[in-house]
Amino acid sequence: MAGLRGSSQRFGYQVLVNGFYQRLATSWEIRQSLLCVGLDPDPDKLPSRIIGHRFPLLEFNRQIIDATGDYACAFKLQIAYYSAVGAERQLEQTIAYARDAFPDMPVILDAKRGDIGSTARMYAREAFERYGADAVTVNPYMGFDTVTPFTDYGDRGVILICRTSNPGSGDLQELKSGDCPVYQHIARRAVRDWNGNRNLALVVGALYPDALSRVRGIVGDMPLLVPGIGAQGGDLDAVLECGLDSRGVGLMINVSRDILYAGTQDDFARSASLKAESYRDRINAARAQTSLTSVS
Amino acid sequence: MAGLRGSSQRFGYQVLVNGFYQRLATSWEIRQSLLCVGLDPDPDKLPSRIIGHRFPLLEFNRQIIDATGDYACAFKLQIAYYSAVGAERQLEQTIAYARDAFPDMPVILDAKRGDIGSTARMYAREAFERYGADAVTVNPYMGFDTVTPFTDYGDRGVILICRTSNPGSGDLQELKSGDCPVYQHIARRAVRDWNGNRNLALVVGALYPDALSRVRGIVGDMPLLVPGIGAQGGDLDAVLECGLDSRGVGLMINVSRDILYAGTQDDFARSASLKAESYRDRINAARAQTSLTSVS
Repeated sequence: MAGLRGSSQRFGYQVLVNGFYQRLATSWEIRQSLLCVGLDPDPDKLPSRIIGHRFPLLEFNRQIIDATGDYACAFKLQIAYYSAVGAERQLEQTIAYARDAFPDMPVILDAKRGDIGSTARMYAREAFERYGADAVTVNPYMGFDTVTPFTDYGDRGVILICRTSNPGSGDLQELKSGDCPVYQHIARRAVRDWNGNRNLALVVGALYPDALSRVRGIVGDMPLLVPGIGAQGGDLDAVLECGLDSRGVGLMINVSRDILYAGTQDDFARSASLKAESYRDRINAARAQTSLTSVS
Repeated sequence: MAGLRGSSQRFGYQVLVNGFYQRLATSWEIRQSLLCVGLDPDPDKLPSRIIGHRFPLLEFNRQIIDATGDYACAFKLQIAYYSAVGAERQLEQTIAYARDAFPDMPVILDAKRGDIGSTARMYAREAFERYGADAVTVNPYMGFDTVTPFTDYGDRGVILICRTSNPGSGDLQELKSGDCPVYQHIARRAVRDWNGNRNLALVVGALYPDALSRVRGIVGDMPLLVPGIGAQGGDLDAVLECGLDSRGVGLMINVSRDILYAGTQDDFARSASLKAESYRDRINAARAQTSLTSVS
């Protein structure tokens, strides 16, 4: 990835040894993929022969990890799918399995935690020590002191909710304050004031490319986690046009359901593999197109 | 509690049979207390003979519940203190114990969840089905459609983060949009648009009585969960003056650390009991003073 060091210095990021930015950049490079595979196994949607397994979520995840890891830059695990059914142990074991299978793959715990300092320290302990995640999603509504217990783990990543694209996402995120909406205040504070440990990233949904473009304009090469492609219907070309950073990377484009449930029964792993490969290739084709467009 | 039905009808609340509002109002009435006891056992602060117990968090909680329940209107369990150390089973058992010991006591799961619909449904299942909580705290930053999977459980309460009083709470909550700051938009939407199932409440911290007063002015008799008394230093008199509803109730004033760690070793339960009784009495003395002041 020629120019990575130059770009990262230009935008003021110190690439920590074994830090989240570095691990993510390495993963983008060696797998040539911006696809993040979401391991959110809905108990009601698992193939019937998996449901009969003693540890169905773990078994399903193992097969999905094996099938998709070659096409992904990261795995993201939505903790609610485990905590709803008391499957924390299967979450731990899934992460351990992913570590064995793809040792250099960043693992993101999607937990959207957010609370006062003493409680946030417990949540950080949950994400980084108990589960050993490389990064965790955090809701910044309660303010920066609720974020620092996470960013204090300097070798881990902290991905703040900024602009999502669910139906009610504008209720608070789009409230205009001063010269811009609330979500842009988060992007500004993240890049200017809150990123002392150089381990922040932001969540920006795929359905509003204009918001993605504005956030990218504010944060330089800070990584962005982009949900909303696939089952939620975001436009991949628009995401790449608006979201790529100066190096032609910078995105973790998450797809969960559309990969996990690409097949229905015995073929689910094979179908997931083909779907993940297809997403990687579509993303890379659109990247190539975007870079051609920006050159011309 | 004379006039309760009249007041609740006046403010448009339908008191559901066995609904959260009703259970809370009953608890305020029969125990004559607005104190919420926070069961947030920090593993580093437990008495040494508890640490040696096989299930230390459960054992500590059982003794605290027995010692303080007569003086409380609710118990609140901060889930991070359990999930950080893999103690979900002790959390389940604590709630079951509280149900046995005080069957009519509302139990609040303080989880501050918030995510898109399909994930929020999993979090609601976690809070209401797995843990059987009467109410759960929710972060509304992602918008109303992320709240409805919780409010759809019409017999449970949903307590939205509105205005907290941690050091960085103003970073986003106080951003002014139109004629008021973001947190007041939440209060307005909560009372006008989001409370179709009549089961919302709000979190408003104790350190900014002015914010408490403004929220109370917006939401009528909607219940407010008020952290920040005790270890965090909020002014109890100001909280009551600004936060009581038209019926002289309406508050769940949470105290955690100041009660849990009132004693240090073998006397911890007795010390917690005395401290909880003292808080209840101080709150009721201030309530009496407030009602005298408002009459004169």
